[in-house]
Amino acid sequence: MSSCPYDDSRIHAALEEITGPQGILTAAEDLESYVRDQRGKYHGRACAVVFPRSTEEVSRIVRFCSNEGIGMVPQGGNTGLVGGSVPDESGREIILSLKRMNRIRAMDSENFTLTVEAGCILQDIQNAAAEADRLFPLSLGAEGTCQIGGNLSTNAGGVQVLRYGNARDLVLGLEVVLADGRIWNGLRGLRKDNTGYDLKQLFLGAEGTLGIITAAVLKLYARPREIVTALATVPDPDSAVSLLSRLRTASGESVTSFELMPARGIEFACRHIEGCRNPLDAPSPWYVLLELFGGREGSDLSETLQEAFGACLEEGLVQDAVLAQNESQRRELWRLREGLVEAQKHEGASIKHDVSVPVSEVPAFLAEATKIVTDLVEGARPVPFGHLGDGNIHFNISQPEGMDPRAFLARWDEVNRHVHDVVARLGGSISAEHGIGQLKREENMRFKSEVEIDLMRSLKYALDPEDLMNPGKLV
Amino acid sequence: MSSCPYDDSRIHAALEEITGPQGILTAAEDLESYVRDQRGKYHGRACAVVFPRSTEEVSRIVRFCSNEGIGMVPQGGNTGLVGGSVPDESGREIILSLKRMNRIRAMDSENFTLTVEAGCILQDIQNAAAEADRLFPLSLGAEGTCQIGGNLSTNAGGVQVLRYGNARDLVLGLEVVLADGRIWNGLRGLRKDNTGYDLKQLFLGAEGTLGIITAAVLKLYARPREIVTALATVPDPDSAVSLLSRLRTASGESVTSFELMPARGIEFACRHIEGCRNPLDAPSPWYVLLELFGGREGSDLSETLQEAFGACLEEGLVQDAVLAQNESQRRELWRLREGLVEAQKHEGASIKHDVSVPVSEVPAFLAEATKIVTDLVEGARPVPFGHLGDGNIHFNISQPEGMDPRAFLARWDEVNRHVHDVVARLGGSISAEHGIGQLKREENMRFKSEVEIDLMRSLKYALDPEDLMNPGKLV
Repeated sequence: MSSCPYDDSRIHAALEEITGPQGILTAAEDLESYVRDQRGKYHGRACAVVFPRSTEEVSRIVRFCSNEGIGMVPQGGNTGLVGGSVPDESGREIILSLKRMNRIRAMDSENFTLTVEAGCILQDIQNAAAEADRLFPLSLGAEGTCQIGGNLSTNAGGVQVLRYGNARDLVLGLEVVLADGRIWNGLRGLRKDNTGYDLKQLFLGAEGTLGIITAAVLKLYARPREIVTALATVPDPDSAVSLLSRLRTASGESVTSFELMPARGIEFACRHIEGCRNPLDAPSPWYVLLELFGGREGSDLSETLQEAFGACLEEGLVQDAVLAQNESQRRELWRLREGLVEAQKHEGASIKHDVSVPVSEVPAFLAEATKIVTDLVEGARPVPFGHLGDGNIHFNISQPEGMDPRAFLARWDEVNRHVHDVVARLGGSISAEHGIGQLKREENMRFKSEVEIDLMRSLKYALDPEDLMNPGKLV
Repeated sequence: MSSCPYDDSRIHAALEEITGPQGILTAAEDLESYVRDQRGKYHGRACAVVFPRSTEEVSRIVRFCSNEGIGMVPQGGNTGLVGGSVPDESGREIILSLKRMNRIRAMDSENFTLTVEAGCILQDIQNAAAEADRLFPLSLGAEGTCQIGGNLSTNAGGVQVLRYGNARDLVLGLEVVLADGRIWNGLRGLRKDNTGYDLKQLFLGAEGTLGIITAAVLKLYARPREIVTALATVPDPDSAVSLLSRLRTASGESVTSFELMPARGIEFACRHIEGCRNPLDAPSPWYVLLELFGGREGSDLSETLQEAFGACLEEGLVQDAVLAQNESQRRELWRLREGLVEAQKHEGASIKHDVSVPVSEVPAFLAEATKIVTDLVEGARPVPFGHLGDGNIHFNISQPEGMDPRAFLARWDEVNRHVHDVVARLGGSISAEHGIGQLKREENMRFKSEVEIDLMRSLKYALDPEDLMNPGKLV
C-alpha cells in the first residue's frame, strides 16, 4: 500500500527522473527511519524520500515540488531534538535528504576555510580540518552522525561556543536552493564583505523554512597545540560566574569550555556510568569542567590556570580543583560531563529544558527555577547542567524517586511553562541551542512580541510565499 | 529662503511637536554640516534635521514621515566614506540624527555586555568598557567621532577584526524602529538563542535602509593585560600570508592585528609625517605590523612571538623584526601605519579601493592589480596596505609624479573597474568595510548575481515597501 494519498506514481516518476532510481525511496517500510525523529516523539508520513547528488538536482526537485505544491522537508542526520526534520502526517510532503551530497569541495588552509556540501558528517569535517592542521570548532554530542547542513540550519551550539561561537558564527559563505528552485551562490570565503544585506544569515538557523542549504564555506581556526582541562568545585553558581570572568581575563580569552554540573549529576554519573569517577573527594554542591586551548606545548597556560585557581581558592570562589595530567585523565573528566546526561535515563523519567539567560542571571535562574519545580512536583530532582559560559542551562528534572514515570511526564507542559516564565522574566530564551521545530512552536509564540512574529512572517512570506519549505516548523 | 520645496512649515511644526524646539534644525545654514559628507563628494539638501531624544520620539517621527511619504536619512557621526548618511538633492528628505540618544543604558560586566544607544560615540563605549575592566574591540580611525549606530548600520571593520570580528559579530541584541514606526525590542544579551530567524542580522550592515537602529547590546571581551606589538619585514606577500598562519597557530589565536604595508607607504610616512621613523634599517619591499593580546603581564607571549620569528627568519619568511619594548615604542610603530594614510595626501591625488579577497589570494591580487594599474596609468604608484589578516586591502594608488591631479582623478572609474574585475575573478568583494552607500551602488550591481539582487530587493520590499528608509542607498 502506498503512503501517498494522491497521484503518487506520477510524482515518483518525475522525481526519479531527476535523481535516478538509486536516489529515491517510496515504499513505506523504507521510509520508516526517515519519517520519525530520534527521540520517538514524532512519526510522520511522506510521499517519498529523495537523495539528490548535486545542487543542480536539488534545484530541479524544488522546482518540481514548487510547481506541484508539494511540501519539502530537508533532512540531514535526523538527529534534531525538536521534530524539525520529520514530515507531517499528511503523507503529501517529500523528504529531501542531503546525505549523498557529502563532498568536501575545497580546503584553503591559508585562508582558514573549508568548503563543504550539506551532507558532510560533522566529524568528517573536524577530521578534514585536523588533517590540514586546522580546527573546525563546532563540537556536540551527535557529531558522529549529524550533518553540517542540519547544523547550520539549526545554528547548532555545543561545548566550544564560549570561545568560537555558534554554527552561525562559523560560516563565511553559503549556497542555497531557494523556494522557487533558483540557486543562490553565496560561497564566498571572505572575512569582510559589505556589499549588501548579509543574506546567509537568513538561512542559518532558519530550520529549512526559507530555502535549502546545499553547501557552505566554513571558518577554520589554528589547531590547538596544548589543551588544559580541569575540574573544580565551587560553593555556588555565583562563584562559578566569577570564576569564569577571572579565567577569561587571566588566560587572554583562551577558555574554550566552561560547563556547570550539580552534585546530583556527578552522583548519577558515578552511580550508573562505567568509567565515571569523581576525582575530587570533598563533597560540593557544584562542579565546573573547564578547558583552555593554547598555541604551543609547554606554554604557560597550566601555570596561568593554577595561579588563577590559587587566588580563587583564597577568596573562597573555588574549593578544590584538579588538572588533567594527560589525555586519558582529560577523557575521564569529560566522561563525567557526558555520563551525567546518559545517567539520568537510569533515574527514571525526566522533563527537559534547553534555556539560556544572560550569564550573570544564571544563579538567579537556577534558584528560581529549582524552587518553582520542586514546589510544583514534590520530590522532583533537578539536574541543571550545561554551558555556563554561554548562559545555556539544560534544566533537566529527574522524577521523584518511586513516582510513576507517566504521571511525572504528564506534567511536562505545565513544568515547561513555569520554567519558561522564569526564563522570560530574566530576559532569556526558551530554546538556546535545540531550535523550535514542531516541539516548541506554540510555546515560542507565547513569548514573542507581535512585532517580532510579524517580522518573521514577513521574511517567510517574502522568501517562501507558498509555504512549501519545511512547512509547520519554526514560524 | 527655505530649503524645503513643499509645505515645509506644516512638516516642521509637526516634527517640532515631537522633538521640541531644541530638537530640530530647518535653516539652510544650520543644515550645512549635515547635508554633506566628510570627503566632500556629496552635497544634498534636506527639509530638516531632527534630533530625537528617545526611541519613542524616533518612532513618532518615523510614523509621521511614513504617513507623509517623506524619506528619512539616519545619521550618526557622518564619518562614512560612501555617501550613505547624506540626503539626496530633492530637499524633501529629512535627516534623523541619533546624536542626542547617547546614553549607556546598562553595563553587565559578568555577562560581558554593554547596552548602548545609537548615538554613543565609539570611543566613549571603548572607555566605558575599559572602566569595567572589559574590552570593546571595535577600533577604527574615526572612533573619536563616529557613533555606534552608524558603526552597526555599516558593519564597521577596523584593525582588530582578525581576532574579534566585524561590528556585526559584536552585537547580541538590537532595538530598531521599523519603517512603519513600530519599535522592535530585540535587546537580548544572550549568547545562544534559537527561537527564530536572527532578525538583528537584517539591520546590521543594512545602512539604515530597513529600519533605524536605536540601541544595541554589545559583546565585551576580557581587557588584555599584555600587548605585544612588532614590525617585521617580509620578502613578499606570500611570506606575509605564511607568517600569519604560523603566528595564529603559535600564539593560540592571540593575533589581534596583522597589517601589511609596502615600502613605498613607509617611505611616504617617514617623508611627510612628523614622528614617523622606520626602526628597521635594511630595505625591504614589504612590512607587517602585528599585535597580539595576552591575558597577563609577564606571560610568555613575547617569547612565543620571538621563537616564531626565529623559525621564520631561518626559512626566509621574515627578514628582520623589532618588538616594541614599551607603550611609546608601540605608538611609534602604529604611527607608521596611520601616517601612511595621511602621507598619501602629500604625494598628490590618489585613487582608492576598499577590497577584500580570500587571505590566500592576497598575493595574486596584489600582483595582478598592480600590473593592471601601472599598465593603465604609466608611473602610477600603488600603495596597497591594510588588514591582511582579513584579506582586506586598501588598494590606494598615488598619482604619477608630476602628473596633473585632475587628469589622474578623471580616470577613477576606469581604474576602479579594472581593479574590481580582478577582485571579482579572485572571489572577492568590492567593498570590504566601507559599505555601498551612494558611491558604489551602481558598480556593485555589476557584480551581484540576479538572484542576489532579487533577494536583497525582496527584503527591502518586505520591510520598507514605500522605500522611505534611507532611499537611494545600498540596494
